[in-house]
Amino acid sequence: MKEQTLLITGANGFTGRHACDYFATKGIRVIAVIRRPDSLPPIAGVEPWVCDLTVKDEVQTLVHHVRPDFVLHLAGKNSVPESWIDPLLYMENNILATLTLLDALRSHPESHILIVSSRLKFTLATPPRPPHPYSLSKTLEECAVLSWRELFQQHILLAEPSNLMGPGPSTGICALLARHIVNSEQGKDMNSFRISSRYDTRDFVDVRDAILAYDLILEKGESGRVYPICSGVKRSLGDIATSMVELAKVPILLEMGHAPQSSWIDDECQSKDLYDMGWKPQIPWEQSLLDIMEYFRTEGVKGE
Amino acid sequence: MKEQTLLITGANGFTGRHACDYFATKGIRVIAVIRRPDSLPPIAGVEPWVCDLTVKDEVQTLVHHVRPDFVLHLAGKNSVPESWIDPLLYMENNILATLTLLDALRSHPESHILIVSSRLKFTLATPPRPPHPYSLSKTLEECAVLSWRELFQQHILLAEPSNLMGPGPSTGICALLARHIVNSEQGKDMNSFRISSRYDTRDFVDVRDAILAYDLILEKGESGRVYPICSGVKRSLGDIATSMVELAKVPILLEMGHAPQSSWIDDECQSKDLYDMGWKPQIPWEQSLLDIMEYFRTEGVKGE
Repeated sequence: MKEQTLLITGANGFTGRHACDYFATKGIRVIAVIRRPDSLPPIAGVEPWVCDLTVKDEVQTLVHHVRPDFVLHLAGKNSVPESWIDPLLYMENNILATLTLLDALRSHPESHILIVSSRLKFTLATPPRPPHPYSLSKTLEECAVLSWRELFQQHILLAEPSNLMGPGPSTGICALLARHIVNSEQGKDMNSFRISSRYDTRDFVDVRDAILAYDLILEKGESGRVYPICSGVKRSLGDIATSMVELAKVPILLEMGHAPQSSWIDDECQSKDLYDMGWKPQIPWEQSLLDIMEYFRTEGVKGE
Repeated sequence: MKEQTLLITGANGFTGRHACDYFATKGIRVIAVIRRPDSLPPIAGVEPWVCDLTVKDEVQTLVHHVRPDFVLHLAGKNSVPESWIDPLLYMENNILATLTLLDALRSHPESHILIVSSRLKFTLATPPRPPHPYSLSKTLEECAVLSWRELFQQHILLAEPSNLMGPGPSTGICALLARHIVNSEQGKDMNSFRISSRYDTRDFVDVRDAILAYDLILEKGESGRVYPICSGVKRSLGDIATSMVELAKVPILLEMGHAPQSSWIDDECQSKDLYDMGWKPQIPWEQSLLDIMEYFRTEGVKGE
């Protein structure tokens, strides 16, 4: 991308902050959409814009003023347990807010729009069998987005990242482990860390590598395509925990269960399209883990 | 149904008014949900309740106070042309409003809930190819409703009526024709009536027969099932127009085109489940047409 305007939604989230940094450093004008004022730390070259994406008028105003060349839609709710408590919130934020954004962008059809979905979608069948409301919200979102593109012929792309990890306020398994380790190092937590299923495997991508993929997709992606973003390497939760514990400065007690692997998760994630376009993960796994530990040791573990 | 409470949404619509009449006459306590005050003519035994189904708090209050034994969800937007102009309105009213209602009803799991979908849904494939935003909204609604039932185990039923016709403020082809004929009889319209595709066929059910089906489904339907409601008889638009013109008191000019039949509509509608439960259409086709003509001759044609 050359000197152009990029709208990033969910800019104060884990991925959003990295995306703001990355694109602003590239010299792109970044409009960072946040829901609450002052929720984003100041980043050079990034202009915050307060907007509730579920409110049509606010989104129309945003698009009308910004007229973005590129849109990176990261906003959304992403906690499985929370989705069981307030499923409607997930449908509003992951389906309706996305469509509200696409609807507003109909007035500016030049925009390249990347909607970030999730590998945690499920396969629609009759009857549909979603594993949890979060998955339902992302599955319907993806279906709605692809359908919307068919109807209105906007330039819309979809990314399906696997588990993103890296330094920053993530709520993923690596961040949870790192928080626990830092708390233990600081003498604030002497309990063991519990992992329900040591053999459960996941594909992890460093958030910074994912952003390189988003950049590439926004610039060169084909409208209507869905781009999975994966490392292609499966790691068991047991191995991850062991690797992270080795980075701890104090002994950490792990309690690892043998719960069966969640069978509905699509195991066969491949990023063939992205590899063909020249993308591959750059950051070694060990470096990601070190950076995560460094983040929590420096920033401290909040809210605990 | 015995003396119990039925919540009808979209109560001031074409089907809603018939449903209020029918169930109130049966001695059921009917709570008629309408969006705007005074939009429903007074019906004995029917209590109007003003509620915007897209506003969560209003829906929670409604369910909390009414605690309905049965819910007949008729509310929604249903104009294909309008859905092209304001697609987001269709997603809000046909998907989010329905989920907002289901979410509120989680607090009252005894409710038997009938969601009225449409035969104008399309088959989800990869990529999805909706014919218009209305179809998208109803297809996603049905998928969301069936998924929601899997997650929360509420007693939820779906009906897919084909084209409903009968006396009342319908916007279907029969009503359009009847309006034109009445206007012609009253000397207000001397133009011809244009039908784009004389060979296009449709399955029609009288709205009063559909309500008998809704009653049966609410009482005896199996949770998670989808019940098509059809007559099983296909009629061409040309035949329909000819039959209605025969009822006119003045000569009516028809202009009938030969546009190809809309190929994506599922032609094979059968109501086998309902027939097995004892339902079948009661009202002869000719009677429906006479009643429609009578309605517009008596009530007059508004807004023209």
